[in-house]
Amino acid sequence: MLTMMFYVAITADAMSAALAAGRRNMDWFGVCLIACITALGGGTARDVFLDHYPLYWVHNPYILVLCCCAALLTIATARVVHRLRWPFLLLDALGLVVFTIIGCNIAMETMEHPIIVIVAGMVTGIVGGIMRDVLCNDVPLVFRGELYATVSIVTGVVYFLGNKAGLPSDLALLIALGVGLPLRVLSIMFKWEMPKFVFDREMRK
Amino acid sequence: MLTMMFYVAITADAMSAALAAGRRNMDWFGVCLIACITALGGGTARDVFLDHYPLYWVHNPYILVLCCCAALLTIATARVVHRLRWPFLLLDALGLVVFTIIGCNIAMETMEHPIIVIVAGMVTGIVGGIMRDVLCNDVPLVFRGELYATVSIVTGVVYFLGNKAGLPSDLALLIALGVGLPLRVLSIMFKWEMPKFVFDREMRK
Amino acid sequence: MLTMMFYVAITADAMSAALAAGRRNMDWFGVCLIACITALGGGTARDVFLDHYPLYWVHNPYILVLCCCAALLTIATARVVHRLRWPFLLLDALGLVVFTIIGCNIAMETMEHPIIVIVAGMVTGIVGGIMRDVLCNDVPLVFRGELYATVSIVTGVVYFLGNKAGLPSDLALLIALGVGLPLRVLSIMFKWEMPKFVFDREMRK
Repeated sequence: MLTMMFYVAITADAMSAALAAGRRNMDWFGVCLIACITALGGGTARDVFLDHYPLYWVHNPYILVLCCCAALLTIATARVVHRLRWPFLLLDALGLVVFTIIGCNIAMETMEHPIIVIVAGMVTGIVGGIMRDVLCNDVPLVFRGELYATVSIVTGVVYFLGNKAGLPSDLALLIALGVGLPLRVLSIMFKWEMPKFVFDREMRK
Repeated sequence: MLTMMFYVAITADAMSAALAAGRRNMDWFGVCLIACITALGGGTARDVFLDHYPLYWVHNPYILVLCCCAALLTIATARVVHRLRWPFLLLDALGLVVFTIIGCNIAMETMEHPIIVIVAGMVTGIVGGIMRDVLCNDVPLVFRGELYATVSIVTGVVYFLGNKAGLPSDLALLIALGVGLPLRVLSIMFKWEMPKFVFDREMRK
Repeated sequence: MLTMMFYVAITADAMSAALAAGRRNMDWFGVCLIACITALGGGTARDVFLDHYPLYWVHNPYILVLCCCAALLTIATARVVHRLRWPFLLLDALGLVVFTIIGCNIAMETMEHPIIVIVAGMVTGIVGGIMRDVLCNDVPLVFRGELYATVSIVTGVVYFLGNKAGLPSDLALLIALGVGLPLRVLSIMFKWEMPKFVFDREMRK
């Protein structure tokens, strides 16, 4: 089940990244590249940090093909896709939560410290989006938008505690989904935000 | 032969990166750093992705010295260098093709999947330029300019197929050069571009 | 002693990064993330380049907690902190020098080439700040400001030579501190800068 959701999440991530690239007038190749980097960047960063080789897309290169196909499909259907706001937001939320859970799983396999399990989940969930924003020359949204990283952390904590409590892995997965998905959707609907730190005095760094 | 072309390519890459840094009024140290990152970033990313350690510049640190010397030489001779448009474009094209071939070689050594061989070549060829543009605070050119990544992919495919077909390695190298170099030069001369994906509706991500 | 200075340096780095994030109106989570990336990015890059696993913050995840606490403390006390210009600059200079020495140490452990020892020190000292500037969408300061990377290189050379000359490790450390710290402070006081490379002709790359 997690594997199937993983492919759905990869595809959704690649498609929303392709739309972002389209707003920057990138060429088709750039769109594919941004799609791959956004969809796979988080997992790659996690694997590099944890020395977890081979990288999953080196092990299974068809994931790259999937991302490129999703990107090209988005180019072909942009007019339709951008109307699908709600399905898309749901898929995006699903992606965030699923990536987080997969990241936690991989860190738990190698018996990392609980903090590292949560961090691995968060890195998997958010780093792809950060890379997309850096390459599109923006200050990453994740630092300023609605609850995004927070959702990832909460999901990771719930999933980790579920596993620690001895729940069957599938049940822990369902509970984590049941917490993370609504939290993300509600935060978008009601524009929940983290408090901002505004500091505008000039100070020498 | 490939080794000699590799050093020529590194030097050319470092020099054109130094000019880019000069347009941003960086100091001498920044120019050297940008030169090293541009010339070596692609290979470093490839080695990290493939877990191919030690990194080639850790193994042979004189490459760093070469890049810094090329950068300082560019500072000293900027007035002359920037007139050498055509020799420079040729060297730049040579660099792209040679880096690609070296990247493919390293992935083939460890018997990676054909897709990964092509990707390794492309990463080696283009990531350095992406890093340069990110550090200079631009949207990377490779996402919007003429055929650049495409040349890298075509070169990689030709080289890989040549090797698969049992050609002697040197012959495959020559054929790949003979396809990649003219393709890049022609794409600059005639401003061939990939189709762009322009999407300007605001959509919530 | 080095360990204690390391924690002081991490904390100072995280706090000054939090102020930078505040100038960009990031939310609390973004501030913590920027603090962690700035304080730990240099060491992470060094460990990835040298294949030195596990990463030090994976090995000791409480460092992440320390960075987040420092960031949150900075948010709470921003009004006071930004007045503490001189203590802060001293801590910042200490951080640069201490990070550099630690980076050199780790490269010397694995008997790397002298150039790589210096580079490892420099990467540890400056990459965190580069990542901070890229994420805040600036051209990194280190490429244009006062002597910063230069201080890191000089400190690394002094420390390496001290060790090579057979001095006790603590004495080499003190000498490197005694050279690097005043050099950095003086360069700020007197606005010493590296010469700039200004090149404004348009040239096709």
